[in-house]
Amino acid sequence: MDKREILSHVDHTLLAVTSTREDIMRICDEGIKYGTASVCIPASYVKAAAEYARGRVKICTVIGFPNGYDTTEAKVFMAKDAIEKGADEVDMVINLGMVKDGLYGAVGDEIGRVKNACGEKVLKVIIECCRLTDEEKINMCRVVSESGADYIKTSTGFGGGGATEHDVALMAKMCAPHLKIKAAGGIRSFEDAEKFLALGADRLGTSALVGLMEKENN
Amino acid sequence: MDKREILSHVDHTLLAVTSTREDIMRICDEGIKYGTASVCIPASYVKAAAEYARGRVKICTVIGFPNGYDTTEAKVFMAKDAIEKGADEVDMVINLGMVKDGLYGAVGDEIGRVKNACGEKVLKVIIECCRLTDEEKINMCRVVSESGADYIKTSTGFGGGGATEHDVALMAKMCAPHLKIKAAGGIRSFEDAEKFLALGADRLGTSALVGLMEKENN
Repeated sequence: MDKREILSHVDHTLLAVTSTREDIMRICDEGIKYGTASVCIPASYVKAAAEYARGRVKICTVIGFPNGYDTTEAKVFMAKDAIEKGADEVDMVINLGMVKDGLYGAVGDEIGRVKNACGEKVLKVIIECCRLTDEEKINMCRVVSESGADYIKTSTGFGGGGATEHDVALMAKMCAPHLKIKAAGGIRSFEDAEKFLALGADRLGTSALVGLMEKENN
Repeated sequence: MDKREILSHVDHTLLAVTSTREDIMRICDEGIKYGTASVCIPASYVKAAAEYARGRVKICTVIGFPNGYDTTEAKVFMAKDAIEKGADEVDMVINLGMVKDGLYGAVGDEIGRVKNACGEKVLKVIIECCRLTDEEKINMCRVVSESGADYIKTSTGFGGGGATEHDVALMAKMCAPHLKIKAAGGIRSFEDAEKFLALGADRLGTSALVGLMEKENN
């Protein structure tokens, strides 16, 4: 696959806790330059980034991130707030404690309420695979498939584990066909990227690929 | 210092991302049994814990946690939401990117707005020392002192570094006398606890001390 084509599947991501405004604007410039699917940035920068990008690249942000245990009401508020400020896409983290308690109805209800707040905007649901058993992952494939969300996503990148071939293949097998897959965490090369795309991912969360392009071009 | 006295300064803390309802209720039982200052738990459990504890132990939760880059509006909402659900104390994380950009006015404004949302309830402000230079820590001692917040707190415990003697001593020296100090992260023994209290901390975020008491008693 052509590198440009691969980059069109990338959410060019910077979620480091000490990211400055300059860092974020650079991420926007790079996302525009390489035609990435979006830039994925902290919520506190969405307004400035949306004003700066003026539609040249989509703005993605994260809510309930990375721990997932904010209240449902807080997640709904954060989704609305992000969209009001200019976000095109929202990546939320599920409540992992509820999964451990087997409360899949409540987990699905929360996702549905956040999707409702997102309206036409894209919602990705991070299930943080590194914290789940395969049985829990399979249950979450069903719950997210039925929730109205647009994507299921492997990882926050903050949980001690990123995307794996096993998990992406499992999602491709167990999710409803309409639900797209985002692989995130630890994607460092175009080879990694092609591997995950071939397994069924439609999006990739990474900053490394744009970094490699910048190196090549300098 | 007597162990019981030390425990009265402890926010008995469970913030693991996969904590179940049973885990949280056990933390409440332990907090009640040992007379801790509070139990510090995920926001999604505040309502259930407050109903369960019925005033026998104070309920503390975290917002903008642990990354700190939610919007100010989201932090204000989360503080109000937590208090409505029964929280007595709220621990918020500052926006570290703003600190790196030197935007101390905006950082202070955000804290002030969250304190406003907290009203009479206690607000603790986590400055995540492991991410800051000493100069930035000193600036934050001033900002938090002037913000209306009740406590300055060293660490989230998720940032790769916890409370240090250096940081607690620095806070004790640089903060206004009315501002109390909470040391959190990596406190594993009563010796650690006494050390931080002697240096000027008034609260300690840890689950280890109650764990040690439980071991002694079994």
